[in-house]
Amino acid sequence: MKSYFKAPKVSGAVIKRLPMYYRFLFSLYNNHVERISSRELSHMMGITSSQLRQDLSHFGEFGQQGYGYRVDELLKIISDILGITNHYTGVIIGAGNIGRAILTYPGFIQRGFMVMGIFDNDPKKIGQTARDLYIKPMDELPQFLQEEHIDIGIIVTPAKSAQIAADVLVENGVKGIWNFAPTDLKIADNVIVENMYLGDSLLELFYKIKERSESE
Amino acid sequence: MKSYFKAPKVSGAVIKRLPMYYRFLFSLYNNHVERISSRELSHMMGITSSQLRQDLSHFGEFGQQGYGYRVDELLKIISDILGITNHYTGVIIGAGNIGRAILTYPGFIQRGFMVMGIFDNDPKKIGQTARDLYIKPMDELPQFLQEEHIDIGIIVTPAKSAQIAADVLVENGVKGIWNFAPTDLKIADNVIVENMYLGDSLLELFYKIKERSESE
Repeated sequence: MKSYFKAPKVSGAVIKRLPMYYRFLFSLYNNHVERISSRELSHMMGITSSQLRQDLSHFGEFGQQGYGYRVDELLKIISDILGITNHYTGVIIGAGNIGRAILTYPGFIQRGFMVMGIFDNDPKKIGQTARDLYIKPMDELPQFLQEEHIDIGIIVTPAKSAQIAADVLVENGVKGIWNFAPTDLKIADNVIVENMYLGDSLLELFYKIKERSESE
Repeated sequence: MKSYFKAPKVSGAVIKRLPMYYRFLFSLYNNHVERISSRELSHMMGITSSQLRQDLSHFGEFGQQGYGYRVDELLKIISDILGITNHYTGVIIGAGNIGRAILTYPGFIQRGFMVMGIFDNDPKKIGQTARDLYIKPMDELPQFLQEEHIDIGIIVTPAKSAQIAADVLVENGVKGIWNFAPTDLKIADNVIVENMYLGDSLLELFYKIKERSESE
């Protein structure tokens, strides 16, 4: 296996599949599977094996003809490509039910991500604990972001407060925003935004159910 | 304005934008905006006005030349297309932090969706309340699904329990599954699955941050 140097520009569709590769490989690794063929792995993932080989070819040459992939090696490489090994830090803005639930999300540790603080502007919530953190007031956010060198802000506020939170995050140096608020944020181009619109996903499900029932 | 008859087959990209149309129109409606031009609406949404007109042309002829769209009419039409006016019912499987947070998600009521039950197999959780519901044991799920004619099952279990939950949901007549468990479910073709992989979304953000920092 050749070593991995630097990820070239790859298409959005491949990027969307990388987390899925990670998820399947992590599960195999956890189940002590040592080797897997491209046929088996692609079958598990519901893609063709030529699609799989083509995806991975963007990042180097993996696997040995007839021997398949070593699960631990491929997992390490995909983790590197995804930046999991960078150990990013984050804060959560908004200590409502969903904010607190995200704080305890078990998938973070596995992905090398650590939430260092949770902030809210509701005096009733400030000072309460969530997981092992005190909920801090919003006016302490700028200093916290700078002192702790926070990489990612997770916005879980109502829509009307989300842009203000985003502006504070960007002004204080975050590299990315993971936005759960149901609004489109205006953000400088040098900061990455990834939206998780729960409501949009549910509406897509509604639409497909309706379309299916009308076609029957 | 001509009336809306039946939604024809439209592309995945248009379907993905429909919830966004709904979100912006609902916000305009809430702010008592009566009319909006295709130019203004498309600008808000970050698409071109010809894209907007083309999207909407899939569903009929809306708007009057030079007068724009009536917000209430267009919101009603988009809601019908999405199936919001069908008033779907749901259950949540998994009463952990994220399951309970989803139960109180304020976007459901607005979308005509009602969660009627929450289920878990942990004896410590069964009988506790979440929102206004008692957490019920999994063995009561089949009867509940049938008696309440539940449309949608929301799976918020650990990955290893998700397929079992999905099988019970499908066997008892749900039309759709909204899956938050980090696993790919095997589901009969007549049931729609919409996946919400939090971990995948976070990894996509990591990847884009890493790619951006490498290109600098």
